[in-house]
Amino acid sequence: MRYSKLFGRTSKEAPHDADSVNARLLVQAGFINQLAAGIYTYLPLGLRVLMKIKTIVRQEMDAVDGQEVLMPALIPKAPWETTKRWDAIDVLFKLKGAGDKEFALGPTHEEVVTPLVQQYVKSYKDLPVSVYQIQDKFRNEPRAKSGLLRGREFAMKDMYSFHTSLADLEHYYDRVKQQYLTVFSRCGLDAIITEASGGVFSKYSHEYQVATPSGEDLIYQCDACQWAVNREIAQVKKGDACPVCGKGIVLEIKAIEVGNIFKLSTRFADDFGFRVALEDGSAGKVWMGCYGFGPSRVMGSIVEVHHDDAGMLWPKSVAPYHVHLVSLSHKDEDVKRQIDEAAQDMHDELEAADVEVLWDDREEVRAGEKFADADLIGIPLRLVVSEKTLAEGSCEWKERHEIDARLVKLKDVQEQTKEWLSAPERLTSH
Amino acid sequence: MRYSKLFGRTSKEAPHDADSVNARLLVQAGFINQLAAGIYTYLPLGLRVLMKIKTIVRQEMDAVDGQEVLMPALIPKAPWETTKRWDAIDVLFKLKGAGDKEFALGPTHEEVVTPLVQQYVKSYKDLPVSVYQIQDKFRNEPRAKSGLLRGREFAMKDMYSFHTSLADLEHYYDRVKQQYLTVFSRCGLDAIITEASGGVFSKYSHEYQVATPSGEDLIYQCDACQWAVNREIAQVKKGDACPVCGKGIVLEIKAIEVGNIFKLSTRFADDFGFRVALEDGSAGKVWMGCYGFGPSRVMGSIVEVHHDDAGMLWPKSVAPYHVHLVSLSHKDEDVKRQIDEAAQDMHDELEAADVEVLWDDREEVRAGEKFADADLIGIPLRLVVSEKTLAEGSCEWKERHEIDARLVKLKDVQEQTKEWLSAPERLTSH
Repeated sequence: MRYSKLFGRTSKEAPHDADSVNARLLVQAGFINQLAAGIYTYLPLGLRVLMKIKTIVRQEMDAVDGQEVLMPALIPKAPWETTKRWDAIDVLFKLKGAGDKEFALGPTHEEVVTPLVQQYVKSYKDLPVSVYQIQDKFRNEPRAKSGLLRGREFAMKDMYSFHTSLADLEHYYDRVKQQYLTVFSRCGLDAIITEASGGVFSKYSHEYQVATPSGEDLIYQCDACQWAVNREIAQVKKGDACPVCGKGIVLEIKAIEVGNIFKLSTRFADDFGFRVALEDGSAGKVWMGCYGFGPSRVMGSIVEVHHDDAGMLWPKSVAPYHVHLVSLSHKDEDVKRQIDEAAQDMHDELEAADVEVLWDDREEVRAGEKFADADLIGIPLRLVVSEKTLAEGSCEWKERHEIDARLVKLKDVQEQTKEWLSAPERLTSH
Repeated sequence: MRYSKLFGRTSKEAPHDADSVNARLLVQAGFINQLAAGIYTYLPLGLRVLMKIKTIVRQEMDAVDGQEVLMPALIPKAPWETTKRWDAIDVLFKLKGAGDKEFALGPTHEEVVTPLVQQYVKSYKDLPVSVYQIQDKFRNEPRAKSGLLRGREFAMKDMYSFHTSLADLEHYYDRVKQQYLTVFSRCGLDAIITEASGGVFSKYSHEYQVATPSGEDLIYQCDACQWAVNREIAQVKKGDACPVCGKGIVLEIKAIEVGNIFKLSTRFADDFGFRVALEDGSAGKVWMGCYGFGPSRVMGSIVEVHHDDAGMLWPKSVAPYHVHLVSLSHKDEDVKRQIDEAAQDMHDELEAADVEVLWDDREEVRAGEKFADADLIGIPLRLVVSEKTLAEGSCEWKERHEIDARLVKLKDVQEQTKEWLSAPERLTSH
């Protein structure tokens, strides 16, 4: 992709009203654009990141036998009355349709998925089953803030599992709990499994927390066994001996919540009278789990964790492009043509090897500005072609998280880039 | 995928309230589930079709240099007032958020995309530019009907192009007009480009109409030059000589509208005061085009066009799976094991060759019921493994649109399936 043709440019100034690092950098770099508080448009660079995060979570939910569905955002009032949540959820956006019929815009989908599964699942033989969707949710937040971290409209992956017993739910819950670590790790985040309030349905839920100084949450974690708990329910304080392993010391950590999973027990199935025929012919209760993951929130969290003063540092797995190719223009027409041709060749070679390239081909822009834009955008590998590098038959190779650059021969670039791309991620949260 | 594990089964009875063929077959076959009038959940089979249609339109919009973005559904009142459409669009869903701020759920996105592009495009050098999104739209239809054809919440691909002159808009408009034919053809539809009302902005818009007896629209088409016009603006009637080529006769055809494209002129850019710096330094007007395509509506239309008394007939390109593998159970345990193993081997071999397989592995279900389900679901190739076929070292090969089956040696199945998959589509609208 030629940067000169890309829709959504960097701007020289940071937005004056950004209340968080992710909002500031994502807006300034041309990844997202704010339409209203907590409501954003994804520009091409930002949408590529969001889609990669969605693909990762889709693959990992498929790996735990989740089946993808897509439920509507518009949900009639009736099921919310069945669960007594029409008035209980304070962030519910409500609206009226033709004939004064009332609807809510779904901030969560227990009210849709429970009666849906009830229509198809009649017998214990049909269970367990787990369905998920990647869909836009709505929350009427009184104070939307922090860029992509707390929005009024945002992407969610919500999965719901159904079981004939608590034991089966717990077995599946543990499986998803582990798989979530893979999802976050593939997104370049070291997530900490943290005990949190389970509400009325179970003793604990589990949150996935990522340590960062800008985090809104405070968690306590043992420095030996890694056990962690949210301050909201913590019975320990900083410096205490770990109540779980007895060996470590409890640390206090600022963190962002990037996912959560709940055991819902039989609460929603009971509300809808959802029972299944058991082997002995009796009508058995149905146990549910739910598993949330916010792709847009995760995108914002990655920026909170992976940035420096110059801009963002995207992990290879979710970067909008793998390579930021920069060609430096030249006054001499012949030299300029040579540089352009070399850059074009490199672009074509890399794309042919499935390497995604953003090519800053702008003619009127100085080198310093191009480098500043590349740092801001944060693509993990920058390759520069200039008169100087071509004199050596080379380009300049600089990884975003490293300070030094080096020369790589043009004939070796494709090979080395492929190697670099398949090597393990070096960017982690800590 | 094992059918015994699939979420969303066929039901023996058609839904009693279906008002169209697509609603009846898609619900009965377990592709979609109705939550409210015009509001559907996509079950795994249906979502696979929808995602394939979205992928096709994404590829073809990329081919005309469209850049993908994602705009919000929640749109503040202000830009609708700027364009004077807050009260003019009668199907606008309106709602209030925190602090009594008013929003609409977008049925179209001129009010978002115009000021968005205005923020990044300052000069004639930045034009033309074309951005599109694949996003869920909302229409407060007084009478939602016809399954996926007229919904209250539905998937749309909407693209918007921006130009410095009418001539440049017309050039691009013609390019997209042609590319749309490829989109429909890849979806198994022969679309007819039809002149339609252009509203106040241009003489004509163009609709893409697919001939089918259940169509709500009536169009007139020349049997020689293929020129076509919607009845709403037609100055011809059935049997007239073609006013364009003078050679053919005008036919009257019932059809479904599956897409439309408009020249918007400078109307929306003018409303927002969107001008660009021209080469001579003056402020130039901005010309817009918009290009709509409804993936969910197209999914419903494919069913309206491609079905028979037994069920649906999906084109290979958008079928939920390529192959419906049916293994017939047997009372004898040894024979049963042989059948299962042969089916498992075939499933694994085909999947290894990137052939998508739905395997009806149900043990307690009779052959007749499995075949009826396969016909209803409409996957284009059915392969049957039974005691009888295995005695010949074969499976039974039957394409959904053909009457006769034949035997194919097990060792040749993978090869022949790959050949069949890469052969041109045989299913077209006529």
